[in-house]
Amino acid sequence: MGLIREPAPALHISQWFNTATPIDLASLRGRVVVLHAFQMLCPGCVIHGVPQATLIHDGFSASDVAVIGIHTVFEHHEAMMPHALEVFIHEYRIRFPVGVDMPGSGSPIPKTMEAYEMRGTPTLILLDRQGRIYHHQFGRIDDLRLGALIGQLISEAA
Amino acid sequence: MGLIREPAPALHISQWFNTATPIDLASLRGRVVVLHAFQMLCPGCVIHGVPQATLIHDGFSASDVAVIGIHTVFEHHEAMMPHALEVFIHEYRIRFPVGVDMPGSGSPIPKTMEAYEMRGTPTLILLDRQGRIYHHQFGRIDDLRLGALIGQLISEAA
Amino acid sequence: MGLIREPAPALHISQWFNTATPIDLASLRGRVVVLHAFQMLCPGCVIHGVPQATLIHDGFSASDVAVIGIHTVFEHHEAMMPHALEVFIHEYRIRFPVGVDMPGSGSPIPKTMEAYEMRGTPTLILLDRQGRIYHHQFGRIDDLRLGALIGQLISEAA
Amino acid sequence: MGLIREPAPALHISQWFNTATPIDLASLRGRVVVLHAFQMLCPGCVIHGVPQATLIHDGFSASDVAVIGIHTVFEHHEAMMPHALEVFIHEYRIRFPVGVDMPGSGSPIPKTMEAYEMRGTPTLILLDRQGRIYHHQFGRIDDLRLGALIGQLISEAA
Repeated sequence: MGLIREPAPALHISQWFNTATPIDLASLRGRVVVLHAFQMLCPGCVIHGVPQATLIHDGFSASDVAVIGIHTVFEHHEAMMPHALEVFIHEYRIRFPVGVDMPGSGSPIPKTMEAYEMRGTPTLILLDRQGRIYHHQFGRIDDLRLGALIGQLISEAA
Repeated sequence: MGLIREPAPALHISQWFNTATPIDLASLRGRVVVLHAFQMLCPGCVIHGVPQATLIHDGFSASDVAVIGIHTVFEHHEAMMPHALEVFIHEYRIRFPVGVDMPGSGSPIPKTMEAYEMRGTPTLILLDRQGRIYHHQFGRIDDLRLGALIGQLISEAA
Repeated sequence: MGLIREPAPALHISQWFNTATPIDLASLRGRVVVLHAFQMLCPGCVIHGVPQATLIHDGFSASDVAVIGIHTVFEHHEAMMPHALEVFIHEYRIRFPVGVDMPGSGSPIPKTMEAYEMRGTPTLILLDRQGRIYHHQFGRIDDLRLGALIGQLISEAA
Repeated sequence: MGLIREPAPALHISQWFNTATPIDLASLRGRVVVLHAFQMLCPGCVIHGVPQATLIHDGFSASDVAVIGIHTVFEHHEAMMPHALEVFIHEYRIRFPVGVDMPGSGSPIPKTMEAYEMRGTPTLILLDRQGRIYHHQFGRIDDLRLGALIGQLISEAA
């Protein structure tokens, strides 16, 4: 591809689940990173996005691919607070790290969502082994095409 | 069937959605009633129960079959309060009436759930046209068998 | 329903599989009968029709419901001869009786297909306990609605 | 991967469909090749293999990936003759080239199937851009993992 790949913006996370220590992208350098942005009350996220992210997490070696969930609440904030997200993560048996996107300053859009210019949920963003954005997907993508994108990134040198 | 059918216990509802006035079972006499008990953060409810209840609501004449959702929260109460349920109903485009099961006195089990001796969610209960319990289903039931049960009840005289 | 139900025409079968003796509809009087008309090389039959017929066969008491497959070949006859059908029945593990519809006289349409005025495959026809046609379905029908139709017929007196 | 990749054996094809001229693997050098071995009356092939092969054919650039069907009949030969396969290809709307595997000499196993040491159907074999075997899959593989394997091969230099 002749496209220029931009460095991925930093994550802005107020609280982490499923990880003992906060995650920053620099620490994942050398691995393909899948950012899965979702809201716990978004049907498309629950029915397609979360199962697909889980499939990725289970299907690839952790040394090759890291899956990070980002809870990007931009609507109905009061119904999707972190204590509810914690129950959601437990009930849906999500095992990859999930970060709560930091609330925006004077905006309903949280900070990571804004930094990545996401248009809604679910959004899936693929970073290459050098921490650069390779693919930005708003809405559904089928497993075969997604697998091929991940496979191509895995093949690249770190 | 030679089984004795017991009269259905009264519903204990603290708040209704999708209906202008509270619903009591006596007002539904003459129709087959499908009680769909769920929790908004229960994966089996979200992935199977709610879509099936919607299919029933859309697939039968309202003069024959009434679908009533009951939000029977028995765990993680603080994450599934009525304001969150309201968002869930909106996001999942649920159009049938949904009642919030009244909290139990000194018990995590809400009152309707207890009165019907439900063992968990999702639970689906079928009432005949005379308001008697015909079938109590905890967990998943396939559409064909469920359709047959409803079809048999529709055929009965009121 | 105020509709008049017509008596089902006789079956015209040149060869049976999965039954020791030929089946005629009169012998099924008292039971609900599901006629599943299919062609072994029709994708809609293979992907939806045959699995649904199998679900019906497995899901209801044989004393209530009889499932009969009819191989109604009206195109590509040379590719769907009885010896190939036999392999199909074996490979797809069809356990209900299947009859080969008798070739038409000077017509590509076989005789049972013509007698029932079927428009193509898959076609599903429901007979009541008195051997009368209750429902004629060309193409796909969902399990819930089909279950309800069968349930209604089961409820009727023989 | 440190595995040695063996050159793919030649195809032994008695008849081609969906291609004006016979295909030999050497002519596909430079492209990733997906060999999809199937039998038209094998349920696993029809329900999973053929749709997946079609998805690959539709989802990747023809300059990157070539999908080739091989009809490897090793049982019930008389029910899966080329004239029947032609109907199958038409009815299932298969658009990629399909070759009839050449019958074995004194063996029910056809020649390509034997050369590749396939154990049954469906079998999916991936060749890299240099015509070497990269992956041999007997039975089902999910789209995500398969996509990743294809993506990795696409990334390699010709």
